[in-house]
Amino acid sequence: MTIREMLEAHPQPTIGDLDALARCVQACGECAAACTSCADANLGESDLQEMVRCIRSCLDCADVCEATGRVVARQTASDLGLVRAAVEACLVACRACREECERHAEHHAHCRVCAEACRRCEEACEGLLASLR
Amino acid sequence: MTIREMLEAHPQPTIGDLDALARCVQACGECAAACTSCADANLGESDLQEMVRCIRSCLDCADVCEATGRVVARQTASDLGLVRAAVEACLVACRACREECERHAEHHAHCRVCAEACRRCEEACEGLLASLR
Amino acid sequence: MTIREMLEAHPQPTIGDLDALARCVQACGECAAACTSCADANLGESDLQEMVRCIRSCLDCADVCEATGRVVARQTASDLGLVRAAVEACLVACRACREECERHAEHHAHCRVCAEACRRCEEACEGLLASLR
Amino acid sequence: MTIREMLEAHPQPTIGDLDALARCVQACGECAAACTSCADANLGESDLQEMVRCIRSCLDCADVCEATGRVVARQTASDLGLVRAAVEACLVACRACREECERHAEHHAHCRVCAEACRRCEEACEGLLASLR
Repeated sequence: MTIREMLEAHPQPTIGDLDALARCVQACGECAAACTSCADANLGESDLQEMVRCIRSCLDCADVCEATGRVVARQTASDLGLVRAAVEACLVACRACREECERHAEHHAHCRVCAEACRRCEEACEGLLASLR
Repeated sequence: MTIREMLEAHPQPTIGDLDALARCVQACGECAAACTSCADANLGESDLQEMVRCIRSCLDCADVCEATGRVVARQTASDLGLVRAAVEACLVACRACREECERHAEHHAHCRVCAEACRRCEEACEGLLASLR
Repeated sequence: MTIREMLEAHPQPTIGDLDALARCVQACGECAAACTSCADANLGESDLQEMVRCIRSCLDCADVCEATGRVVARQTASDLGLVRAAVEACLVACRACREECERHAEHHAHCRVCAEACRRCEEACEGLLASLR
Repeated sequence: MTIREMLEAHPQPTIGDLDALARCVQACGECAAACTSCADANLGESDLQEMVRCIRSCLDCADVCEATGRVVARQTASDLGLVRAAVEACLVACRACREECERHAEHHAHCRVCAEACRRCEEACEGLLASLR
């Protein structure tokens, strides 16, 4: 996991547990990619009209996960208040997207895989928040 | 202002006051551009070592503003809880970045201009949050 | 225009004409916002199935415009080859998105406004490329 | 690899070889995270002044990789000309960033790891371009 090596090589003390940070950055990146792909797969489905809410959730979740992953990756002169606010927004985005994707998981495999990526990102965000306190 | 026209042309009811939404999307975009530029200008300054905290704040603020501007721009199947969490994270990012930039506003004009963009984005975020309640 | 002031305050020589740079960064930001909004407006339209290609074009164009606006905004230690490659990719994205949006401009006002934002971004990209040579 | 599963579950035919697509999306995400982290680690180094060019390269590379990863991930109504232009810009960004990071790889482990992520992303981009022709 490249991001673990990057954080280990950082010249400054990290703001939290190294594993929790690495897991969060990794999970944000994977969730963002899954959500971008799921929104796009939904656009190609025959029940497109039923997938509108899912597309919206996925687009939001991808954007919030990418921004959060960047904020969490940075360790120089960190502002813990901002890290917390960003990770909390990410939690809200992942939860909403997972719940919507779970509703379609039986008929769309991409929604099932995306819901799992959201779930892992929620857990990584919760783990990081716990390690910061 | 293009974004005002876009929101007026939207087929669905918007989640809040049209002016407050348009102002927030606009301010997020301008603040993101100012922060990207300010981080880069700091990299070219002779007192670079003193600007490290400012660069970090600007990078975070640019990322959070871009993601928030996208979430706020979307009006189809909105999740108000996510809109609020994203706008609140944006407020935290803009406040931290403005406070840091204000400390350098006298000797770096780009920090003064960037602090003003952050201030406008804070006001736009607060205005939107008030209109959502 | 905030970005013009930011570039004027930059401590390093800029890579091209100041007006051309400012116009490009500004146009990329406005085009990205218009495309994000147009993709979302299309999701709320009753002829959704006919708008799939337009949504895809808008999502791509928003992403490429945002990245390009950031690369162009930076003036410290620039790599002209990368600036050119990014601006050229942006031109391709804006042209494709404008052509698709123009096909729907008569029945969807958001597509008309978005096509205009793409057109301005194409012109700003072409203007910048010309000023770099 | 989540993204491989997502692409397999896509309802539309993909624009290229599934492995080449998945590898490119994956490599873009990892390179973006490594570059974001490397730029930040450089900000915390004692030889900060010597790392300015590296920070700039990393910031650009992160932005271009993220946008490219999104364009490549999408498979509905693709525009091959845009995919090519984005992947080519990504190649330019990764090559420039790798070359700069390699110059510092002996004294900064994060630059060594980042250079490796850039190298993998270059290879994935080249592999995808070859599979598209």
